[in-house]
Amino acid sequence: MLRLQSTSSERWLAQVDSHLNEILIDHAHCEQKAAAAALDLMFNYVENQELCREMTEIINEELEHFHLVLTILNTRTIKFRKLKPGPYGRRLKDLVRRQEPQKAIDRLLIAGLIEARSCERFMLLRDHIDDHELSSFYGDLCESEARHHATYVRLAQSYGCTEEIRSRLDELAGQEAIIIADGSDLPRMHS
Amino acid sequence: MLRLQSTSSERWLAQVDSHLNEILIDHAHCEQKAAAAALDLMFNYVENQELCREMTEIINEELEHFHLVLTILNTRTIKFRKLKPGPYGRRLKDLVRRQEPQKAIDRLLIAGLIEARSCERFMLLRDHIDDHELSSFYGDLCESEARHHATYVRLAQSYGCTEEIRSRLDELAGQEAIIIADGSDLPRMHS
Repeated sequence: MLRLQSTSSERWLAQVDSHLNEILIDHAHCEQKAAAAALDLMFNYVENQELCREMTEIINEELEHFHLVLTILNTRTIKFRKLKPGPYGRRLKDLVRRQEPQKAIDRLLIAGLIEARSCERFMLLRDHIDDHELSSFYGDLCESEARHHATYVRLAQSYGCTEEIRSRLDELAGQEAIIIADGSDLPRMHS
Repeated sequence: MLRLQSTSSERWLAQVDSHLNEILIDHAHCEQKAAAAALDLMFNYVENQELCREMTEIINEELEHFHLVLTILNTRTIKFRKLKPGPYGRRLKDLVRRQEPQKAIDRLLIAGLIEARSCERFMLLRDHIDDHELSSFYGDLCESEARHHATYVRLAQSYGCTEEIRSRLDELAGQEAIIIADGSDLPRMHS
């Protein structure tokens, strides 16, 4: 359903175990970045009213999640701070084609893949983390990530036929799986 | 209360009369830009939790207003489209000092002045426009613009003493009045 072409490795779960606080801080940044990406899409495709409506809902939900993560950081007295970004977002962004409407298709499909990967990793966290509060928090978030994934893939279909979108999604999901397999030494939600 | 150092001239109301549709389209863009500026502030000052909370509320309200303007455009069959930006935002941005915490102070005070100018112009539109729907729409929006203005000025006080903030706000309001007096040939909400 999520169109990912790989599952996360034990390597990432080892990073979670040794750097959980840093990954929680990164999660707060991810929610902010997801809101900003949705707002950018609204700016760039103002003529697509369905997109504007859906992006507004996504922005509201991402900011709500951001504050849920902030509350978790606060109750654990973990200071929210800036972090050097991992390579995941930048490497995905490099795959976006320059010409419209291919650019719109790629931006939407990549946003959909990031939501899918978050969903997969939140499910892993739900099953892996001993801490009951965190485990149930990540379980609760999976549903909205899966829903956002479906929204982005559906919106991409405003800019191309079903066959074209399916085939491009396969290509991008293949690239995403390579980026995830390469990983990063920086412990991040998508490392 | 709004700390502006000028009132809008008849020149602007003449632009409103001759280019109302374009000004309505620009209004939709203004709401999007206000949401984006608030999100940027959240990104850049993550350690300020009061700011993060307030910016989230402002983003939600700006997006709500954006959709209200879109509905007005739709009922009037005015096509929402990109517009060349007027010089107002760029000229204000050029006034931001480079070093922190002065940069934070300036960004917040300028955001507050933009809200104040919007409030002043919405009141003018309320009193000037014959169309009852539009007139009452602008009347309704004034309150939130004034509230956002007060929020931004209060948040600036996290980064400097009351005297410093008051004096810098006076300076920036003086500059803002000059930019508004210069105006622009492009009919915009802040031309």
